[in-house]
Amino acid sequence: MSRIANKSFRAKIVDAETAASFIHHGDTIGMSGFTGSGYPKAVPGALAARIEAGHAAGDPFKVRVWSGASTGPELDGALAKADGIEFRMPYNSDPIARQKINAGEMDYFDMHLSQVAPMAWEGFLGPLDTAVIEISGITPEGDLIPSSSVGNNKTWLDIADKVILEVNAWQTPMLDGMHDIYYGTALPPNRVPIPLLKSDDRIGQPHFRVDPDKVVAVVETEAPDRNAPFSPPDATAEAIAGHILEFLKWEARRAGLPPSLLPLQSGVGNVPNAVMAGLIAAPFEQMTAFTEVIQDGMLDMIESGTLRMASATAFSLSPDRAAFFNDNAERYRDKLILRPQDISNNPELVRRLGCIAMNGLIEADIYGNVNSTHIMGSKIQNGIGGSGDFARNGYLSIFMTPSTAKGGAISAIVPQVSHVDHISQDVQVIVTEQGLADLRGLPPRKRADLIVENCAHPAYRPMLQDYRARAASASFGRHAPSIPGEALSWHQRFMDTGDMKA
Amino acid sequence: MSRIANKSFRAKIVDAETAASFIHHGDTIGMSGFTGSGYPKAVPGALAARIEAGHAAGDPFKVRVWSGASTGPELDGALAKADGIEFRMPYNSDPIARQKINAGEMDYFDMHLSQVAPMAWEGFLGPLDTAVIEISGITPEGDLIPSSSVGNNKTWLDIADKVILEVNAWQTPMLDGMHDIYYGTALPPNRVPIPLLKSDDRIGQPHFRVDPDKVVAVVETEAPDRNAPFSPPDATAEAIAGHILEFLKWEARRAGLPPSLLPLQSGVGNVPNAVMAGLIAAPFEQMTAFTEVIQDGMLDMIESGTLRMASATAFSLSPDRAAFFNDNAERYRDKLILRPQDISNNPELVRRLGCIAMNGLIEADIYGNVNSTHIMGSKIQNGIGGSGDFARNGYLSIFMTPSTAKGGAISAIVPQVSHVDHISQDVQVIVTEQGLADLRGLPPRKRADLIVENCAHPAYRPMLQDYRARAASASFGRHAPSIPGEALSWHQRFMDTGDMKA
Ligand SMILES: CC(C)(COP(=O)(O)OP(=O)(O)OC[C@H]1O[C@@H](n2cnc3c(N)ncnc32)[C@H](O)[C@@H]1OP(=O)(O)O)[C@@H](O)C(=O)NCCC(=O)NCCS
Ligand SMILES: CC(C)(COP(=O)(O)OP(=O)(O)OC[C@H]1O[C@@H](n2cnc3c(N)ncnc32)[C@H](O)[C@@H]1OP(=O)(O)O)[C@@H](O)C(=O)NCCC(=O)NCCS
Repeated sequence: MSRIANKSFRAKIVDAETAASFIHHGDTIGMSGFTGSGYPKAVPGALAARIEAGHAAGDPFKVRVWSGASTGPELDGALAKADGIEFRMPYNSDPIARQKINAGEMDYFDMHLSQVAPMAWEGFLGPLDTAVIEISGITPEGDLIPSSSVGNNKTWLDIADKVILEVNAWQTPMLDGMHDIYYGTALPPNRVPIPLLKSDDRIGQPHFRVDPDKVVAVVETEAPDRNAPFSPPDATAEAIAGHILEFLKWEARRAGLPPSLLPLQSGVGNVPNAVMAGLIAAPFEQMTAFTEVIQDGMLDMIESGTLRMASATAFSLSPDRAAFFNDNAERYRDKLILRPQDISNNPELVRRLGCIAMNGLIEADIYGNVNSTHIMGSKIQNGIGGSGDFARNGYLSIFMTPSTAKGGAISAIVPQVSHVDHISQDVQVIVTEQGLADLRGLPPRKRADLIVENCAHPAYRPMLQDYRARAASASFGRHAPSIPGEALSWHQRFMDTGDMKA
Repeated sequence: MSRIANKSFRAKIVDAETAASFIHHGDTIGMSGFTGSGYPKAVPGALAARIEAGHAAGDPFKVRVWSGASTGPELDGALAKADGIEFRMPYNSDPIARQKINAGEMDYFDMHLSQVAPMAWEGFLGPLDTAVIEISGITPEGDLIPSSSVGNNKTWLDIADKVILEVNAWQTPMLDGMHDIYYGTALPPNRVPIPLLKSDDRIGQPHFRVDPDKVVAVVETEAPDRNAPFSPPDATAEAIAGHILEFLKWEARRAGLPPSLLPLQSGVGNVPNAVMAGLIAAPFEQMTAFTEVIQDGMLDMIESGTLRMASATAFSLSPDRAAFFNDNAERYRDKLILRPQDISNNPELVRRLGCIAMNGLIEADIYGNVNSTHIMGSKIQNGIGGSGDFARNGYLSIFMTPSTAKGGAISAIVPQVSHVDHISQDVQVIVTEQGLADLRGLPPRKRADLIVENCAHPAYRPMLQDYRARAASASFGRHAPSIPGEALSWHQRFMDTGDMKA
């Protein structure tokens, strides 16, 4: 049975090479894809081949690539390898693209994920030539059944001049009905409240609309999503998860939170996944998630009955779990909702629902500022993603990390972060395997007491205490004592010697 | 005619000393006041006297002070001078308190102003013993007519154990009806959309409720608000205002914004006031403001007919303008609305309305990060205030500053800011008298090109170019090149030599 139930779309089926021929040097392409899910699997490769051929012939060929967030190696990896990306936004985690970005060879614009669609509509980012969108089917009426991520697809379909569709038969047909595509957004002065009150409210429709006249090509694929597998939680991850669970139990009692707690948001990565695993055993029930991505840990929570439902913009399942999900999708149909990322991450909604935000970090400083993105202040790891959307607006914002990196040569707690993504106002709790610092209501020097004492690794604690003691007299002001000439010296030392320790 | 139309409240009239006797060492006091408007004028002074007497007798006496934002010298100045403040939040601009904070003698918790009320309700800040609230009258029914600022008064009245009221007969009775007190807030999981669609929507009631049993004292005063006068715009302020007006005209055309533009938010200070003055001559009509405070410039815009109405949480008028307003308040009754600060600054509303946010800064770096608060990274000037509420959520976020400070010894554009309040994602435009940098959609190195070229002072431009040139090779990554060991050396040099120049 074809996934393309509409005749006029069937008439547009071509191979990936033909589809890619609609894309030219200098174009801006809006791709589907959010983590390794729902990105186009065929056209980007064909485009990369076109680009390589162009370069071989001495012709310039680069495109600007927009997406939901990160994608898979067949997209970012292939295009970056072909030296075909001039500009990339709003998020990247592909290693080849990362290397080009950090070599200064590729421009990258790192954005709050909730703001991509509105800023595109407002024209802040320039025009969009072509949308390349993976879907899981086309209805008889010509509507599009979304795939395993929604991301910015609605917006790309609406604002692009041309549309190329990839219909991926690997995606389970059971996805149909899991999406909630909200068509009520508008630009100021015409914006209205978003009518969502609970994680499980449905406020939109299951399918994307598209102007059929804009669709220049339809490509059929049958290719799996590609997300990295999670490593089983190690002792560090388990210690972090343990501290967070103790804290959440305590906080629920203190604040009289409901037995279902408040909607969870969980960042990507092994440690957040371990926290989800830990929550299975926690004394909460009928929890919900209002989050960016659905990871393995959340499926496990649903299986165990702890989690009633999850709202997100994408799946981000390891290969095994993705296969399991495809085989058992029926079970999850009323428990998962995928929305556009300007809704899944919307500050209005995150604040209204009171999400408990739990995200990873690269480094934090003694005053509670967090760097989520730039190693040594200059080398970008991934991007801010949705962490700012959730951290500033949630009920609670928790950031977690092992207390050291690179085998102990780097302290995750430093005198001053080398780049700031989350200001101390947006960071309520910092957790490492050493312990947890609840920073709510505390002025800078008291924040520093807790962070150094509870979170820093013992190998770095005396160095931090020494810095604080000297800053107390050498500082310009003593509100948040610092020594500018020394505050980033740990980073410089690591760059010079390979170790932050003196 | 008494301002206290309710008999049982009249029975509670006492002098300020008696009222202050309800306050004890260790108490937390929720004061009214937002800029030099609507703060209690009598009880804080009586409390300061009590504290001084206590200290003279060898007794410890300190209180924790919460407010809307800054207040007047009779409150923060008097209590700080008496060494009576243990902890202050969420904002301060009093010079004596600032000095104590920066001497490390007073704890200060600098908050997003929209988050104070919700965090107080959520219990993140501890319990509130006593509210001391200036009002302009009491109705026969025992409801409270707010004064010239609303701030967090609704919340303090609701959550405090005891309430002391100051009824200030200096405030014009015409204030009655100008306020819109929204009683629809709730904590998650019970929050609902805030039903405000336009700056001039009224969603609440004109008066505060109070439980009469909590009211332990009512004090009558007749004392003026106290805000600093504005200096007339100098050439620098006029140049900045000129660049912003050109840009807004251009942006309105580019984006097809309505003739009324979008709601304005304007920070406090001389330069924002000059921008308002400039807007009088701009080709916009029937504008509105959705902002934190109403300054002189906004009254002028209303007088000129350019501004149709303004929504804020407080007046912040110079003494002359405050007197003028009191004499002519009738004219403004349908043009001004004062709301609680969790509504005036609410991210949901700022985003929905698409405010144009215009705020001052201390320093910005070449990548567009902004420091609004900490001089040399450690000495706090005022606080983040509402700048984060507006900058992250508005349609556009504009930051402005003279390109140098301290007679040229300090560059407002530096290699790396010594403290971050606004990450580059939340800063779309930077303006100095030198020019304007429109940073939308630009990756870090292109942001740096524009900021150095357009905004830096010529005396510092070559130093910035030199840093950039060396960072291009010395950096760990070249996404946003930096030299950690040198990035804050300009600040250290200023601290050591009194000049950022080498
Ligand atoms: C911060 C973040 C990178 C941590 O992810 P993680 O998977 O827990 O991180 P890891 O510990 O595996 O670290 C990733 C890399 O950064 C390195 N790293 C971590 N901390 C470091 C530090 N302080 N200094 C230098 N390098 C560091 C690690 O060594 C690792 O490097 P490698 O790939 O060379 O081994 C990740 O959470 C992120 O990208 N966050 C931003 C976006 C976000 O929060 N999204 C969710 C919002 S919805
Ligand atoms: C940033 C802010 C202080 C600028 O205010 P302003 O009135 O335009 O500033 P000024 O130029 O008068 O500077 C204030 C002081 O800081 C000093 N200063 C300014 N820039 C400086 C810099 N880069 N380094 C050191 N000192 C600096 C000035 O010299 C002046 O010092 P002085 O009082 O000793 O003379 C002010 O906008 C603020 O407090 N902002 C944060 C809160 C906010 O934005 N609120 C509005 C949101 S609704």
